[in-house]
Formats: sequence, structure tokens, C-alpha cells
Amino acid sequence: MSDAKVVTAALIIIGNEILSGRTRDANLPWLAEQLTGRGVRLMEVRVIADIEDEIVATVNALRARYDYVFTTGGIGPTHDDITADSIAKAFGVAIDVDPEACARLEAHYADPAQLTEARLRMARIPAGAVLVDNPISAAPGFRIENVIVMAGVPMIMQAMFTGISHTLAGGDPILTRTVHSSLPEGHVAKGLGEVQARFPSVDLGSYPSYRAGRFSLALVARGTDPAVLDQVVGELASLITGLGGTPTVE
Amino acid sequence: MSDAKVVTAALIIIGNEILSGRTRDANLPWLAEQLTGRGVRLMEVRVIADIEDEIVATVNALRARYDYVFTTGGIGPTHDDITADSIAKAFGVAIDVDPEACARLEAHYADPAQLTEARLRMARIPAGAVLVDNPISAAPGFRIENVIVMAGVPMIMQAMFTGISHTLAGGDPILTRTVHSSLPEGHVAKGLGEVQARFPSVDLGSYPSYRAGRFSLALVARGTDPAVLDQVVGELASLITGLGGTPTVE
Repeated sequence: MSDAKVVTAALIIIGNEILSGRTRDANLPWLAEQLTGRGVRLMEVRVIADIEDEIVATVNALRARYDYVFTTGGIGPTHDDITADSIAKAFGVAIDVDPEACARLEAHYADPAQLTEARLRMARIPAGAVLVDNPISAAPGFRIENVIVMAGVPMIMQAMFTGISHTLAGGDPILTRTVHSSLPEGHVAKGLGEVQARFPSVDLGSYPSYRAGRFSLALVARGTDPAVLDQVVGELASLITGLGGTPTVE
Repeated sequence: MSDAKVVTAALIIIGNEILSGRTRDANLPWLAEQLTGRGVRLMEVRVIADIEDEIVATVNALRARYDYVFTTGGIGPTHDDITADSIAKAFGVAIDVDPEACARLEAHYADPAQLTEARLRMARIPAGAVLVDNPISAAPGFRIENVIVMAGVPMIMQAMFTGISHTLAGGDPILTRTVHSSLPEGHVAKGLGEVQARFPSVDLGSYPSYRAGRFSLALVARGTDPAVLDQVVGELASLITGLGGTPTVE
């Protein structure tokens, strides 16, 4: 990537329900697109269980490696919502009910009796963390250093991310160009590898698909330099033409 | 889990296209359900890029921790299909074109000219590995020790898994019981935590949802002992009734 500004991120999806197959995660594809659009490269995703040691070890491994670490899940009111406490442990800081988080919950539940002991757990925030707004159901996420802790419910997670996205230091925008054809992957592969070798700053991928009984091959070029991408797209189009195919550039 | 037979697994999803948001993974939820149904607990999933060092490190970390490690993706004919070579490196074994894998590809492509140099890469199998059949497009996956390497295309992955699933040593079947109500999570949380504390062998989760404008809370109990699950379901139903709700047991 030579002189491109590269900003990296990891996502930790916390929840037994994803690992058991009960719930289908919708946060990874949404966040992946959002981050890519902001020039942040999602480098790794881990789905882990509601187990404190796992959360602590995973957070500490990834926050040292990447510019940002996002977590989803485990910040509700039940016994298995242990993300906040685990994050505090990972950072070696105290955790207690945060007055501002508590005030937000009080304002959200009209009847004080609704703010049960269990719900008050949702106001537990590690020392030194900054709240992340939850415009849907009040209970906040938080950010501590480069770790951003969000809800698992997609609607709430999306609102939280949207609220903090302007604070992320993005890298150079990652541009994508796609060249479609109906050539089989096995015919294109050799030439594609040669183009990749000549343009190491571009990430080249090949994605075959069948839709409505019709075969299609998408050659995808991703990179930060539009001029280089134009060159690559030109080479890919020539490659396809040379093999008897008809390239369509997107 | 006391005397229950516990068998564990991890899944490694290899592919830049998942991390960029271009492709939505469909393999995790499918495999999670299949493994759960066979008494194998999926403990962790990692989505990683097409980078050799990442694949080697991830495979080696997870194969030491879990009974089985499944990988999806990166076994096609293009330059970014580096899974087989990376697995060979992780195990410290040689890799070369496997005669049987080669024969299968030859049989699949009627015209010998179709078996391009690139496609022949799909016959590269680490020394000591056993082939995993691909009834869809011939190019096999493989198993080496406790690591099972499969295609990323869901249709092919599913056919590969289905072909080898009888060889997996399953644990005690994991049974799931669900108690539905319309009580808010914050009201149930305290009692739920108390039930969890009394039945440590059962994994209790609480999953709120809104569907068609209607709130619903699913309390999910997972475990291997049907008698214990019956007790837990009874306690959850009492808990809900005691809080003024109407439990529906599934």
C-alpha cells in the first residue's frame, strides 16, 4: 500500500446464541460495509462465547494489534451480559454504576420501579470510558481507549455506530472496481495472478457465482489509488478479451 | 456439565470478501446448527484475511484448543486461494499435487485442456491429509489430523460436510428448550440469574425480539440432561407466572 494511510479494525461478536446457530449475526456484514466506506480495513472478526476469560483475552489480543476494536453483544440486563465487566478486567480498571448512564436510564423508564436492579447493571461502565449514545433504548455503549462496545441488537448497534462514526480517524478511502465476465475462474486464474503480482498495492479477488442458472465471474480490485485501479481494470479487461470473453466494467 | 461428554469445535472463515462486506457469510449459521445437532459445541469462529501468516497462526492456535477445526474458503484456483499451502505450513508438512485429487479433476473436466495449470492447484494436498469429497465440482477438501478444510461456496461446503459428518465423534446431544413470554428482560433478569446459579450445567440465555410490532422474550435453556432441563423449564415457567406473565413452553 506504499504511502497510503491504512487504518485497521477488528470486530468481536460476543454471544452464545450466534455460536449455537439460534441467532444469525447481522452485524458483521453491516459493519464491514460501513468501515470499508470510511477507509477503515476490517482485518479480523471473532465470534466468542459469553465467557469472561475469553472476552478478556480476545479484547487484549486485538486491541494491541488494530487501530480500533468493536464489540457487539452482552451489554443487556441479564446474568450472561458480562461484556462491560470483562472489558474493565481487560483494561485493569474499576467498574461501577455511571451517574450519567444511570440518569439516562431513569429518564427512559417513566416509572422508577421499572429501573430494576437488573436494568441498573446496564449503567455499569468501566472507569475512564466515554459513553456511546443509544437513541433507541437509552442503555449506553461505551468507548475505552481504542475499544468501542456496542449492543448486539442490530437496530441499536447501527444507531450507536452511526452516532460515533464521525469520531473515527478513517484511512484513505478504499475504492472497489469490478470486472464481470462469464469466463470460468480456472481460465482466468493464471493471468489474474500475474496482474496481482504486478500491482501489489491492489487487492485482487475472483468471485464466481450462479444466479438464475447463469454463471458469472466477478474480478474485484480494491485499493486506494484511483489511477492504479484504472490501470488494473484495463489489464483485467484485456485479460478477459484475450481469453475470448466479454468484460463488463462496474 | 459434570459427566457429560463434551466435544468442541472452532470454525475459521478465510476470505477478504467477507471482511470487506462484499460477500455475506452463510457458512457460520449452517455449520453452527449442524454441529449443535451432532452434539459438537462450536466454541469460537474467526474470520480472517487471505494472508498466509494469519492462516498459519490461527490454525495452530485453534487446533490445539478444540477437538475439531473447520475451515471454509480459499481452496479455489486463483492466486488468493492459499488455504492448502498455509495448512501444510501450519502442520510443517510438504504439499504437492495429489494423484487421487488430480484424477478426480481429470474425470470432471471432459476436455484435458480444461484442466489448466491454475485448476491443477486445486489438487495440491498436504502430505498425510485425507481427501474430503466434493460431489458438486470435484476439487476436494481434505482433513489433516483434527482440521477439516472445506470450500467457501455454501453449496459445496454443505455437500462436503454432509459427506464427512458421520466420521465426527459427537458429544452428548445438546438439547434446547425455550420458554416464551411478553415480559421485559429487565423484569426477568434477576430471577433468571438465580435459576442459572442453581443449574450451572445448563446454559441459560435471554433473547428479546420485536416481530410485527409485538414484543417477545425467549428464555432458552441448553444442556445435555433432559431431566435437568425439565426442572429448569419448570422454574422458568414459575418465574414468569410469578411476575404476572404467561409462559409458553416450546
